[in-house]
Amino acid sequence: MRIIVDAFGGDNAPLEILKGCEMSVKENGYEIVLSGDEEKIKSCAAENGISLENMSIINASQVVTMDDHPDCILKAKSDSSMAVGMKSLAAGEGDAFVTAGSTGAAVIGSTFLVKRIKGVKRAALATIMPNDKGGNFMVLDVGANVECRAEVLVQFGVMGSEYMKAFLGVDNPRVALLNVGTEDTKGGELQKETFSLLKNMPLNFIGNVEARDLLFGAADVVVCDGFSGNIALKSIEGTAQYLINNLKPVFKKNLGTIIAYLMLKGSLKDFKKKLDYTEIGGAPLMGIAKPVIKAHGNSKAKAFKNAIDQAAVYAKSGAIEKIADVVKKGKDTADENS
Amino acid sequence: MRIIVDAFGGDNAPLEILKGCEMSVKENGYEIVLSGDEEKIKSCAAENGISLENMSIINASQVVTMDDHPDCILKAKSDSSMAVGMKSLAAGEGDAFVTAGSTGAAVIGSTFLVKRIKGVKRAALATIMPNDKGGNFMVLDVGANVECRAEVLVQFGVMGSEYMKAFLGVDNPRVALLNVGTEDTKGGELQKETFSLLKNMPLNFIGNVEARDLLFGAADVVVCDGFSGNIALKSIEGTAQYLINNLKPVFKKNLGTIIAYLMLKGSLKDFKKKLDYTEIGGAPLMGIAKPVIKAHGNSKAKAFKNAIDQAAVYAKSGAIEKIADVVKKGKDTADENS
Repeated sequence: MRIIVDAFGGDNAPLEILKGCEMSVKENGYEIVLSGDEEKIKSCAAENGISLENMSIINASQVVTMDDHPDCILKAKSDSSMAVGMKSLAAGEGDAFVTAGSTGAAVIGSTFLVKRIKGVKRAALATIMPNDKGGNFMVLDVGANVECRAEVLVQFGVMGSEYMKAFLGVDNPRVALLNVGTEDTKGGELQKETFSLLKNMPLNFIGNVEARDLLFGAADVVVCDGFSGNIALKSIEGTAQYLINNLKPVFKKNLGTIIAYLMLKGSLKDFKKKLDYTEIGGAPLMGIAKPVIKAHGNSKAKAFKNAIDQAAVYAKSGAIEKIADVVKKGKDTADENS
Repeated sequence: MRIIVDAFGGDNAPLEILKGCEMSVKENGYEIVLSGDEEKIKSCAAENGISLENMSIINASQVVTMDDHPDCILKAKSDSSMAVGMKSLAAGEGDAFVTAGSTGAAVIGSTFLVKRIKGVKRAALATIMPNDKGGNFMVLDVGANVECRAEVLVQFGVMGSEYMKAFLGVDNPRVALLNVGTEDTKGGELQKETFSLLKNMPLNFIGNVEARDLLFGAADVVVCDGFSGNIALKSIEGTAQYLINNLKPVFKKNLGTIIAYLMLKGSLKDFKKKLDYTEIGGAPLMGIAKPVIKAHGNSKAKAFKNAIDQAAVYAKSGAIEKIADVVKKGKDTADENS
């Protein structure tokens, strides 16, 4: 398994990324291809005692920054670590690509440099989160497309369903549409049209789901446009952070509670980890013809290692081939009916 | 102060509502007008030892249920407790109206029976939540209009700003647009257009805000369409509930943590309360010509009492007159410029 890694994406590049890669090589024996400024990578590794064993470097002279327009990856920054890594993936020089860089550039780069699966209309950024039943659910799109048409959302349902089957082994994933109520007629034009299309798909479509039920295992795949998905994801993130911040003063009120806090610290850490979606790895770019994982911008070594692991499992899972197959069948059926 | 109350709205009607009204009369001396089936109200009060002192009843033979189409309030259920209460408010028989019934019916009823402020294009359902700075912020719309035009969102900004000034005494409220990123150019067509309109309004518009920053005091007034506002609100609700549920097992791991749990129980309750937006009261229907408060459907007596208090303060605050004034001035300026 050969994973191409953007060594200059995210807030903690390249140090934390190199550390994460080293962990991944040691633990899982993956071969890593680092894209980025060769000299800087080597000196950072040397200065920090990081072994580059089992890693190679493809040089890239530029870096996509958060201030860059996402389109830059195609022209102005076509020699950036992200662009070079993606082109290397497209050329078959690795099995998957991981970046913690700009989400917008990752979406555009994947779409135009790695390319979409044939028949897929739009790529989606998907997040996988834990639910309270001990399982996981996927929300897509969480930000690649702020505006979507109904047919695009239907494909998101297909892609999410195949991913959950192949990658996480979920039987017959329950696909739901994110909406403002559970009744069939809820939402705006987009939701109503998507609902009626999803109903007629060979999917386990269970109807509308409300945002408040997501973490309680209401569905395995939650379909939405990138705007509302992003709002849901960031509301969940923000609330978790708010609650964790607010627990500390509660604990530190008096000697009794300070003792209680010390006793519970470990359990709370576990708990925070459970909520922290970077623990699962990153967000797969669904609909892209090869595995691309977008790690969180503030990923540290451990989170980055998890994203690499996720990329490897994704590459092995056969999910992309399954999606290609289902989308092709859907198209063939549509062609026959037309 | 005379508050009209829908005695048959919500999951716990009429018992918890009557209890809440009784609390309100005792604590604040408000005069309450109950709308609903007179016989049932009287027998429920008698059976449960609730005093109806300082309360009067206007009879209504019907109840709007959750299965009813919201439009029913105008025709099929025009003699429902909600419709009768609203008509009584419109006729000037009270200073404000509170219902825990169907949100959809409350929006339609307010719009057509109580009517909007002159010049206001759409009514919005607004939620007020606490932030971690000890203040509060308002999100609007959270569900009255799943689809909105930019000019409608701009008015939401105006209304929210005036409400926060008059009702909560916030100086120069910071108005922000809910978006997928903080950069000026983020979002879809709706956000881009709204952004450029808000920039030119006599408001303290601070730009885009991300959902993850809402609880951290990023803005005083958060403007959004009812779809994404609803997603944000319910994501926050769901995550808080998830975290509280998940804390219990953490606490109950062993004798040490059970003791810790017992020590912390009170503090945790306070904490949950802080997050529970029903504590603040209900959601005001912004843009309606008289104060209408939509209490949470599962409100118990205390929450309902809080909603009544909120309605009274809203009526006294002069917020509606301020909004009417600002909207009129905006219209006059637009007319002059055209």
